[in-house]
Amino acid sequence: MPRFYKKVSSKAGQTPGTLTHVGKKKVAKVRITLNDYDEKQIQQKEMKRIEDCFPFKDKPTVTWVNIDGLHDTETIEKIGKHFGIHPLVLEDIVNTEQRPKVDEFDDYIFIVLKMLSLNEKSGETHSEQVSMILGKNYVVSFQEAIGDIFDPVRKRLAEGKGKIRKSGSDYLAYALLDIIVDNYFKILENFGEKIESIEEGLVDNPKSESLQTIHSLKREMIFLRRSVWPLREAISSLERSESGLIEKKTRIYLRDVYDHTIQVIDTIETFRDMVSGMVDLYLSSVSNKMNQVMKVLTIIATIFIPLTFIAGIYGMNFDVMPELRWSFGYFMVWGVMIAIGLVMLAYFRRKEWL
Amino acid sequence: MPRFYKKVSSKAGQTPGTLTHVGKKKVAKVRITLNDYDEKQIQQKEMKRIEDCFPFKDKPTVTWVNIDGLHDTETIEKIGKHFGIHPLVLEDIVNTEQRPKVDEFDDYIFIVLKMLSLNEKSGETHSEQVSMILGKNYVVSFQEAIGDIFDPVRKRLAEGKGKIRKSGSDYLAYALLDIIVDNYFKILENFGEKIESIEEGLVDNPKSESLQTIHSLKREMIFLRRSVWPLREAISSLERSESGLIEKKTRIYLRDVYDHTIQVIDTIETFRDMVSGMVDLYLSSVSNKMNQVMKVLTIIATIFIPLTFIAGIYGMNFDVMPELRWSFGYFMVWGVMIAIGLVMLAYFRRKEWL
Amino acid sequence: MPRFYKKVSSKAGQTPGTLTHVGKKKVAKVRITLNDYDEKQIQQKEMKRIEDCFPFKDKPTVTWVNIDGLHDTETIEKIGKHFGIHPLVLEDIVNTEQRPKVDEFDDYIFIVLKMLSLNEKSGETHSEQVSMILGKNYVVSFQEAIGDIFDPVRKRLAEGKGKIRKSGSDYLAYALLDIIVDNYFKILENFGEKIESIEEGLVDNPKSESLQTIHSLKREMIFLRRSVWPLREAISSLERSESGLIEKKTRIYLRDVYDHTIQVIDTIETFRDMVSGMVDLYLSSVSNKMNQVMKVLTIIATIFIPLTFIAGIYGMNFDVMPELRWSFGYFMVWGVMIAIGLVMLAYFRRKEWL
Amino acid sequence: MPRFYKKVSSKAGQTPGTLTHVGKKKVAKVRITLNDYDEKQIQQKEMKRIEDCFPFKDKPTVTWVNIDGLHDTETIEKIGKHFGIHPLVLEDIVNTEQRPKVDEFDDYIFIVLKMLSLNEKSGETHSEQVSMILGKNYVVSFQEAIGDIFDPVRKRLAEGKGKIRKSGSDYLAYALLDIIVDNYFKILENFGEKIESIEEGLVDNPKSESLQTIHSLKREMIFLRRSVWPLREAISSLERSESGLIEKKTRIYLRDVYDHTIQVIDTIETFRDMVSGMVDLYLSSVSNKMNQVMKVLTIIATIFIPLTFIAGIYGMNFDVMPELRWSFGYFMVWGVMIAIGLVMLAYFRRKEWL
Amino acid sequence: MPRFYKKVSSKAGQTPGTLTHVGKKKVAKVRITLNDYDEKQIQQKEMKRIEDCFPFKDKPTVTWVNIDGLHDTETIEKIGKHFGIHPLVLEDIVNTEQRPKVDEFDDYIFIVLKMLSLNEKSGETHSEQVSMILGKNYVVSFQEAIGDIFDPVRKRLAEGKGKIRKSGSDYLAYALLDIIVDNYFKILENFGEKIESIEEGLVDNPKSESLQTIHSLKREMIFLRRSVWPLREAISSLERSESGLIEKKTRIYLRDVYDHTIQVIDTIETFRDMVSGMVDLYLSSVSNKMNQVMKVLTIIATIFIPLTFIAGIYGMNFDVMPELRWSFGYFMVWGVMIAIGLVMLAYFRRKEWL
Repeated sequence: MPRFYKKVSSKAGQTPGTLTHVGKKKVAKVRITLNDYDEKQIQQKEMKRIEDCFPFKDKPTVTWVNIDGLHDTETIEKIGKHFGIHPLVLEDIVNTEQRPKVDEFDDYIFIVLKMLSLNEKSGETHSEQVSMILGKNYVVSFQEAIGDIFDPVRKRLAEGKGKIRKSGSDYLAYALLDIIVDNYFKILENFGEKIESIEEGLVDNPKSESLQTIHSLKREMIFLRRSVWPLREAISSLERSESGLIEKKTRIYLRDVYDHTIQVIDTIETFRDMVSGMVDLYLSSVSNKMNQVMKVLTIIATIFIPLTFIAGIYGMNFDVMPELRWSFGYFMVWGVMIAIGLVMLAYFRRKEWL
Repeated sequence: MPRFYKKVSSKAGQTPGTLTHVGKKKVAKVRITLNDYDEKQIQQKEMKRIEDCFPFKDKPTVTWVNIDGLHDTETIEKIGKHFGIHPLVLEDIVNTEQRPKVDEFDDYIFIVLKMLSLNEKSGETHSEQVSMILGKNYVVSFQEAIGDIFDPVRKRLAEGKGKIRKSGSDYLAYALLDIIVDNYFKILENFGEKIESIEEGLVDNPKSESLQTIHSLKREMIFLRRSVWPLREAISSLERSESGLIEKKTRIYLRDVYDHTIQVIDTIETFRDMVSGMVDLYLSSVSNKMNQVMKVLTIIATIFIPLTFIAGIYGMNFDVMPELRWSFGYFMVWGVMIAIGLVMLAYFRRKEWL
Repeated sequence: MPRFYKKVSSKAGQTPGTLTHVGKKKVAKVRITLNDYDEKQIQQKEMKRIEDCFPFKDKPTVTWVNIDGLHDTETIEKIGKHFGIHPLVLEDIVNTEQRPKVDEFDDYIFIVLKMLSLNEKSGETHSEQVSMILGKNYVVSFQEAIGDIFDPVRKRLAEGKGKIRKSGSDYLAYALLDIIVDNYFKILENFGEKIESIEEGLVDNPKSESLQTIHSLKREMIFLRRSVWPLREAISSLERSESGLIEKKTRIYLRDVYDHTIQVIDTIETFRDMVSGMVDLYLSSVSNKMNQVMKVLTIIATIFIPLTFIAGIYGMNFDVMPELRWSFGYFMVWGVMIAIGLVMLAYFRRKEWL
Repeated sequence: MPRFYKKVSSKAGQTPGTLTHVGKKKVAKVRITLNDYDEKQIQQKEMKRIEDCFPFKDKPTVTWVNIDGLHDTETIEKIGKHFGIHPLVLEDIVNTEQRPKVDEFDDYIFIVLKMLSLNEKSGETHSEQVSMILGKNYVVSFQEAIGDIFDPVRKRLAEGKGKIRKSGSDYLAYALLDIIVDNYFKILENFGEKIESIEEGLVDNPKSESLQTIHSLKREMIFLRRSVWPLREAISSLERSESGLIEKKTRIYLRDVYDHTIQVIDTIETFRDMVSGMVDLYLSSVSNKMNQVMKVLTIIATIFIPLTFIAGIYGMNFDVMPELRWSFGYFMVWGVMIAIGLVMLAYFRRKEWL
Repeated sequence: MPRFYKKVSSKAGQTPGTLTHVGKKKVAKVRITLNDYDEKQIQQKEMKRIEDCFPFKDKPTVTWVNIDGLHDTETIEKIGKHFGIHPLVLEDIVNTEQRPKVDEFDDYIFIVLKMLSLNEKSGETHSEQVSMILGKNYVVSFQEAIGDIFDPVRKRLAEGKGKIRKSGSDYLAYALLDIIVDNYFKILENFGEKIESIEEGLVDNPKSESLQTIHSLKREMIFLRRSVWPLREAISSLERSESGLIEKKTRIYLRDVYDHTIQVIDTIETFRDMVSGMVDLYLSSVSNKMNQVMKVLTIIATIFIPLTFIAGIYGMNFDVMPELRWSFGYFMVWGVMIAIGLVMLAYFRRKEWL
């Protein structure tokens, strides 16, 4: 179950701009990787110290610095200083409880969103906060842990395929956004499959586990919704941004990401409708089944009650009970009983209670 | 049951603009048909190669190229190159999971929507993605499979009836939109009939199948809604478009399509209200019926329980039980039992439990 | 029960602007009535042919042509030609499935809405589409059938009471709108009375018919809502219209109609809230009553079960059963049974189960 | 229970601007009271004829004419003529079914709203329509009946306390609005107390009356909402009005009334949430209680059924039944029965059914 | 349980601007504390009389006057006079039933919001109204009681850490807002923990107390929502304010507070969804458990009823009952009974009723 809050309250009362890492410390050491490229050449290497990346900033090439691990606030402060990032932005980067948003500043655009990935084995959704600083000719991205879904972008950079090497830092930021949003579809597919597998047995064989599964599905959906809804507005504001950092020809790509985001939201809403319909279906299936049980059992009881009464009558010990003396009395009683039973059965049939 | 997602996640990480056909491959071979007309003459023929259509583009006549089948990405790439279509648009064309939308570019307008048709035999709704490129004097339309609902337009073109031959490519695009939206009404009628037929037996004879039918109706409605809602905004933006591609006199026709779209949405919402009312009606009918069963049966049981108790009393084997010795004892007990039964019946009647 | 859709799908694929009457053919012959007036004089007469009305159009007097019956598309086409009405507008006039709307054109304003009237005898709501063409000094109105609610306007015209004879065609259109909206209140009153009469017996004596009545009420409300909601926007756009056809002094009257429309919508929403509250009330009343039945009956059964068990004990035929031999045994058993019964009753009382 | 509609349909078809009093005739005679003041002096007196008030209008002092009783349409017509009020406004004044609204005209502002007061004895909410005409240096207010909540304003006028005597007619109108809105809080307090008193017994002792009380509370809330919601927009439009009739310094006071209105709406919405939560709580309390009854009773029955069966076994009259001959048979059977009873009790305990 | 209304109705009819303290009188004596600082020096002291603070206002330093206790309306009136505060603002300060809002005036900005703090022992949420007057170089804050959450700000002021001493009064106001909003997260964490602890036992062991806890949680959430929702708009209007009182560099900090507010609202909405999901889960868990009980018990009863009937048959006293004479009769009956019991068990098993 994804948790919906972390211990952020410990931050209350701190000087604004104080860098306190909120979230689990996921890596032992911060890993810094650098991509520096233009149309002709590319360098991809891992850096030991953040200072080693700084010289690349002033080169005309596009520089992508990726930081894995947010607990080393010193490194982040250095970046902040060198790139001229506002302390509040740095604070947002290390506090992994951000809502997806896009904030524009004079020299850079700050983007924060959730990278969701599916653990193929456990079927669980893993969420990680990704922040990006998009500057004139650089992108600095921050992740909580080593391991991400950006490898296709790195490969495209290395191979120089597509437009990526020929375009600026805004296209790189788009490419990262795009791959994150595309991954949401994977999560949705996984959801869709879960929903279908639950739905199958729901009417014929409703189990009480189903309800719990539906319930946990609902919660995951709440979580997913919360990650994606604000993204819509964020990307839309990015697309319509008047900042000079986004070139006109990149906007059409952002529009495409925007369309995908809407599609994701649409699908989530559809799933919500479907899941809430399933709860109703489950509940009425359960009650249908229970009704059937109760009905059949009650009918059996009802048929035997009058018969037992008759048997009780002739079990009485009155001195004078003429029927008891008749030689065919016993058989007659059997006849009466069978007749009553049949009449009742017929009545129930006609009333469609059976 | 319409599926709400297809395998689009395989696209994640691809270079944007890569053409990957998403959807079922519905035709063996791509079919290309051409209509080229002006007020005086018309050519309607099937083309083997897409290149054969290109010369028509530069003629002053209106050219309508229709492509059935999206899996042959090469053909689509050629069109893209010749007509100057943005790679992302081509990507949207072959990915059949698009949300209805209208995107305006400098030289053309891209329209994508869902063509719904009713399989008369099975009563199932069939959905297919239709994309259109509306250019200065051409329309290129893309469909997933051979067989569509555009025949009346082709016939009007051939016969030269109405305004269609005298108008430009924008009117042709309108005519195609119009016929697609008009077909939604057929789907809705089919829905309406299903709803009425379910509703009839709902109160008197609620069956557990009804719920499942309602449930599947609900899902189809979710699907339909999803296809139509975005269309409203799309057509509205087309109508208010400032692009020179849409002539002023065509706008009033687009407005008409817009009105129809709203009418479709209205009807869907009405159906939704009706269907959710039916669920309530079904559930309370079922519980009404169950209550009746339980009530009658419980009453029978309740009447006989005290009587059986009395019979039990006189079945006891105490040495001293004066009543057993009375010669009229047996008949008196019968009298008492009948009296008790009648009193209870009367009580239940008065309480309106019967 | 009002139907929510008619066979409009037969229109799919027709040339736009083709006049196909959709709706029931309600009159044998189209009836054409003419009112032509200015402050000083008025002519009110029935016309045989529509052509006879045309000369009045060019006179400075205000001309009101009313057409009852929409199946004679020839007449409507002639009007269209003479008054210069757009073919799509004519199509909307004969297709009686329109949503209330106001469309402005250069020379005229097209208004379409639903005229509801109450059949006093059957208590049913009757709906008819009314369209109006408001031109410089004429109004052409179209109705589905002979018989309407406009008689008070005709009388005011004839008598020259109020401002109507002194005002232009815009005031006439307002007067017709006003009387249509005022009639909605009659429908609402009828609804209100139905709701109250159902509500009265709901708590004390819930019947399964009530639910059906509520259900049909709900459906009628859905229908009513659908007729009135779009009217709000339509009249508002008319009021704020920049067309020269609406004089400034008439706007305040339109504002009044607008206020009435909002009031109608408000009342419908209130009724909706009330009706959905009634469903809850009904359901819990039913279950309350059922609970009462079950409780009392179950309690009776429960009291007698242990007693019957005791009777069963002393009905056993063991050779050695000391109590059977006691001379006061039988009476003691009675005592024990009565004691058990009373203790149980007291317990149930204390638990407030009785 | 407040009624939600009155007989307004009788108005349908009348000439617009016809004054027809809709509502109960609440007073025998119309009462006219006049307040005429400036900073230095004040006159407060009752007038016999409306004409006596007219001379005050042209004086530079602020004049407040209050009319109690709306059935005397002649008086209202005279006011309309003298003050130059539009006939439709007069119509709105006498039709007490208005929605709260503010209409601006060139020379005056028309305000209509609902005055709610609490009948302390019966606990019922009493609603009355109050209309105001705010002109250059006069306010004319109309009420349905004698007796209002304006006495504090009259007293402040008489005593010359606060700003009221030093300010214009707009401040007077504000003062009247303010006191009406402040009275809504009284109604809300009364509601709050009712809600709390119902809530107290709801869990431990749910009664079927509670549901009816909640239901009637809900209806009153619907009514209250309907009176207050439109007021928000009305006062907001008054505050932002560009009419010269509202001085800048009065606007801040109107803003204060606006804040209060929002607070009232907020509280109503909160109450709605609470009440609908209470319905759920009531329903599950009832079913909890019912479940308890059924469970205990069924358990008793279940324990005795197998025991009675055993007793039945040894009540059979077979010639050969070895156990019957055992001298300890009877006691053994008792032992078995007690054992079975205890085992079942233990089982139920462990399953937490008891 | 937080109360949702206080006795504010007693204010109805008062002269606007009359200071009447609404709320509990929480302190015996008003406490006045002063912070006066610039970059170089700071004075922090408690003042006896409010007049002692006035000289600081005209100094170029930033002055923060904090008032604990609102019942001493005289002190507040003096502040109002000296700082030129509008009487209505003063009225809002002492009436602790305000909705969070920001009102801009020419010389100052009035901010009112709710300070929530968590009583660590009882787990209860404590709410207090905080108002602030933000002027050119001063902030006056008002609280209901002594004891607040501002100590970190005071410490930062004293120590001169961060930007606070170098910035103006707008940054001080921000710092106070920030700490109040940050404290909401503490409340939310507490909520989250409560929700999780309830949820744990909900499926396996639903107790009727759970529902009450959920209900009270819901009410607290309603209360919390009401405190926070309006804050969103208020802070947003502050951030976009065109008043010269807010420096440009402070706006980015306000934006940060705004983001936090949205996050708080988001979390509240998530909790609402979760809690309402829990109600459904609770109800179906309860009914699941009840169904289980009923099912098992009914099955036991049903098996024994036919068996008891058979025993009853052979308990009859007919003279002629051949089976009774058979020597193996008794054992055969046992056999039949066991067979019937097993068949029924098998049937129930196969039907999955067991």
